[in-house]
Amino acid sequence: MGHPDENIHPIATGRAAETVAQHQDPQDLVFWAGWFCPFVQRVWITLEEKKIPYQYKEVNPYKKEKHFLDINPKGLVPAIEYKGRALYESLILCEFLEDAYPDHTPHLLPKDPFERAYVRLWIDHVSKSIIPAFHRTIQAQEPKKQQAELQEFYKALRTISEKAKGPYFLGEQFTLVDAVIAPWAVRDYIAREHRGYTREAVGGGWKEWAEQLEKRESVIKTSSLLEHYEPIYGRYLRDEAQSEVAKAIRSGKGSSVI
Amino acid sequence: MGHPDENIHPIATGRAAETVAQHQDPQDLVFWAGWFCPFVQRVWITLEEKKIPYQYKEVNPYKKEKHFLDINPKGLVPAIEYKGRALYESLILCEFLEDAYPDHTPHLLPKDPFERAYVRLWIDHVSKSIIPAFHRTIQAQEPKKQQAELQEFYKALRTISEKAKGPYFLGEQFTLVDAVIAPWAVRDYIAREHRGYTREAVGGGWKEWAEQLEKRESVIKTSSLLEHYEPIYGRYLRDEAQSEVAKAIRSGKGSSVI
Repeated sequence: MGHPDENIHPIATGRAAETVAQHQDPQDLVFWAGWFCPFVQRVWITLEEKKIPYQYKEVNPYKKEKHFLDINPKGLVPAIEYKGRALYESLILCEFLEDAYPDHTPHLLPKDPFERAYVRLWIDHVSKSIIPAFHRTIQAQEPKKQQAELQEFYKALRTISEKAKGPYFLGEQFTLVDAVIAPWAVRDYIAREHRGYTREAVGGGWKEWAEQLEKRESVIKTSSLLEHYEPIYGRYLRDEAQSEVAKAIRSGKGSSVI
Repeated sequence: MGHPDENIHPIATGRAAETVAQHQDPQDLVFWAGWFCPFVQRVWITLEEKKIPYQYKEVNPYKKEKHFLDINPKGLVPAIEYKGRALYESLILCEFLEDAYPDHTPHLLPKDPFERAYVRLWIDHVSKSIIPAFHRTIQAQEPKKQQAELQEFYKALRTISEKAKGPYFLGEQFTLVDAVIAPWAVRDYIAREHRGYTREAVGGGWKEWAEQLEKRESVIKTSSLLEHYEPIYGRYLRDEAQSEVAKAIRSGKGSSVI
């Protein structure tokens, strides 16, 4: 997401605020975050799942610290600072955490090479189909276009849900597919309240899967109070947002985000 | 790319034809390919680099074998059939080959977790910036737009070239960054002949890097005669192409391809 667009709540609330409070001590790994951002939440879920020691730092999008911009000139969150060097892009960060902390369980990627590739294939579906369709749905202004985009969003969700074994995507094991889609389960109420979306209408078991994702401890611990996400999406709903993903959708120059 | 758009040469030529001839025997791994496709070539380069035993099967885009569609309903190449199951998407296939053949060297991903993430970050730049800019440049019809897109293409290439240590991206080691960008070094003559592009104008050491990529044995062995790529790009140059990437660029519904 990059940054919010208006005068939103500056810090995490609810259970996420507790988690932030528990991660203030200096660590080898600094997690540069924005509490509101779904791409941040993916990485945050991964950190919490694996119980990796990290220091949480909230990035004020209007006043980015010099040190943050020095190590990460694009200034995007999520970013990880690891022994003085920065990495960014949520999926790359999730994979990095798997690689860099091999003794921290659970492993969010299966050991079997084919299964790993299968997980990455469905993560790719989330990036290329689900998230762009969600954003086109909420950014669409014409009711007819909103309806058409909503149908695409349903279809993209249904395609992956039909493959989900339950309770999680691969069955009992919570994997990166779950971690990367969970932030949109947390936020799909935006589409429900403003675009007539329902989980039931998706079909394919999405409702049950989304409920499992919302109940996962790592997801709860990284979620703020729902009322604080709403103002962020206000400008998306009026198609006035200026974040990276909003601009990409509007310009048609790119809709696959990671 | 998915499929070409007109009556193109049906099979690999030149050095690639010799490579195809050497990979006809049945193997555990079947490589479903299209000789002309740059996304196919990435995976092919990876197979050749690591000397993985594979059976090459050319997919006729107009007459796809029933078995191929049975295991891979989207019908896209590149695809890999491994012990009866299919995987697709070029980057996922390259990572799969790294994971599934750990004893085959060279390793195209560094061992160090941070370096691996760094490689993936630059691969992401190829997917999100370089390839879309290449396609927008060759699909643009208005001279002014062609010029503007060409400048974006230069910028995207320059950004990564400035980070390349030489002779390859990370230095002496040929990595996945090299494998995934190499097919566009092979094909950039299309932009030279039709859009006024030159390697020199990119700057940042792209010319030297591109020349190293073209000279790499795995790249040579997977390249057909240049004259046969040209007709494929004819319809891109008139913006009439119907491949996945061409349609994505035209519709503005997505420009990040893997």
